Amino acid sequence: MHKVVLLRHGESLWNMENRFTGWTDVDLSPKGIEEARESGKTLKAEGYTFDCAFTSVLKRAIRTLWIVLDELDRMWIPVYKSWRLNERHYGALQGLNKAETAKKYGEEQVKIWRRSVDVRPPALEKDDPRYPGFDPRYADLSEEEIPLTENLIDTINRVIPYWESTIAPTIKSGKKVLIVAHGNSLRGLVKYLDNLSKQEIMELNIPTGIPLVYELDDDLKPIRHYYLADEEKVKEKKELVENQGKIQGNS
Amino acid sequence: MHKVVLLRHGESLWNMENRFTGWTDVDLSPKGIEEARESGKTLKAEGYTFDCAFTSVLKRAIRTLWIVLDELDRMWIPVYKSWRLNERHYGALQGLNKAETAKKYGEEQVKIWRRSVDVRPPALEKDDPRYPGFDPRYADLSEEEIPLTENLIDTINRVIPYWESTIAPTIKSGKKVLIVAHGNSLRGLVKYLDNLSKQEIMELNIPTGIPLVYELDDDLKPIRHYYLADEEKVKEKKELVENQGKIQGNS
Repeated sequence: MHKVVLLRHGESLWNMENRFTGWTDVDLSPKGIEEARESGKTLKAEGYTFDCAFTSVLKRAIRTLWIVLDELDRMWIPVYKSWRLNERHYGALQGLNKAETAKKYGEEQVKIWRRSVDVRPPALEKDDPRYPGFDPRYADLSEEEIPLTENLIDTINRVIPYWESTIAPTIKSGKKVLIVAHGNSLRGLVKYLDNLSKQEIMELNIPTGIPLVYELDDDLKPIRHYYLADEEKVKEKKELVENQGKIQGNS
Repeated sequence: MHKVVLLRHGESLWNMENRFTGWTDVDLSPKGIEEARESGKTLKAEGYTFDCAFTSVLKRAIRTLWIVLDELDRMWIPVYKSWRLNERHYGALQGLNKAETAKKYGEEQVKIWRRSVDVRPPALEKDDPRYPGFDPRYADLSEEEIPLTENLIDTINRVIPYWESTIAPTIKSGKKVLIVAHGNSLRGLVKYLDNLSKQEIMELNIPTGIPLVYELDDDLKPIRHYYLADEEKVKEKKELVENQGKIQGNS
C-alpha cells in the first residue's frame, strides 16, 4: 500500500485583491503563509515524513512547500518543480479584477468561464506581455505546450503525463511523496485517480491548506482518501472556497 | 566564457554557541539570515541571474539558498542538494564546546585539528548517535562513503567527484550556476579550481555571505575571480573569519 499527500497552497495576495491569477506568479498572503505553517504542523503531529516532493514553478506553491518542509525538518529532501503542476491558465482574464470582468462580459459569461469544464476564457495573444513564452521559466517548452488559455480538461491533459511519467514511478519505487500544487491541477489529479465524471469534478472543491491523503494499491488505484483535519474544519474550508467561487472564483 | 558564483552560508546558531558543527544540521542565526538576504540583494543589484543551483543537505546552506532565490525572484529554478557539498565532518568533536575541547585535549592539539590539511579529529564510533548512517538523508550512501571524521583532503576528495560529474557539465552546457555551501567544501573547490598548494589553501579563508564569482574558460580553467563587495568589506569579513579561527574555529 502506498500513500501520497496532496496539498493546495493557501491564500495568495490576489485572492485578497479579487483578481484572476492563473499562471501569474503571485506570492502567498500572510494568511496563506499561516495556512502553510498549519498544514506542516498537522503533518508533523500525524507523524508523516516524505522522501521527495513535487510542486509547480509558481511561488505560492513553492513557498507553501518550503514552509511545510521547514516544519517537518525535511528541507534536505529532493524537490522537483514542473510547469505541469501549475494552476489552470486563465488566458486574457489573468490580472483582471473579477468584479470589473463581470461588468464587461456579464455575470453569466464569467460564471461559465469559471465553472465549465470545457469552455476556455478568451485567449492571450502571443505578443501580450503576459504570454508565458516571454518568461524564462518556460524556455524549455515547445510553442504547442505553452498555453494561451485553458479549460479544466486542458489542465488535466498536461498534469496527467507528468503524474504518469514521473510522480507515479516515484511512488511505485516505494518513496513517500508530497505534492504541493493548485486548486485546478489537484482537481485534475483527483479526477484522474478517482475516475470522476465531468459533473462530479465540477462539484468538487479542494480546501486550501489541508493535507489530502490518498491511499493507493500497488497499481496506484485509490483505496480511500481523507483530509488530515476534523470534518468540521474541512466543511468550513470547503464552504469558504465555494463562497469565494460565488463572489471571486477560485483561480 | 562561463561564470559560476560560490556563496558561503552565514552565521549559524552554533557559531554563536562556540561549538564544533561539521555535519550537525544547525540552522542559521538571525545574523546568518541577514547575511543571506544581503548577498541576495547584492546579486540582484549586480544583475546576476541563475538557471540552477547546487547546495548541501544541511539547512544552514539550504536556507541561505532559499533566501537568495527569494530575493532574486528565482524560486522556480531547479535546486540540487548533495551530501558531497556538506561541511567538513568534524568527527567526535561535533557538538563539543570549543573552549572545553581545548581544555581537554590542549590548545595546541585543537589548533592542529582545525588548521592542518591532513590531520583528522578523533573519529566517531559507528554506534555513536551522531553517526551519519543513522540519518535518513544519508540512506543512499555506502558505508565507505559515510565519514567518521574528515581532514580537508577527505572533504576535497568527495566534493570534486560531484563537481566533475554534475556541476561542471551543467556549467559547460551554458547554464548559469550558483553554489551555496560551507567554508571547507568551498575551500576544497577553490583549491581544485586554482590548483592551490596545501600551504596556500591553509591560508585561504572564504568570507561568509559575500558572493565569490569565478570566470572560467571553455575548459573551466579560471580566468579570474572576485568578490561582489568592495575590498574593505571583504577584508573586514576575512579578518572576522580569521579571528573566529583563533577563538572559535570556522567549522
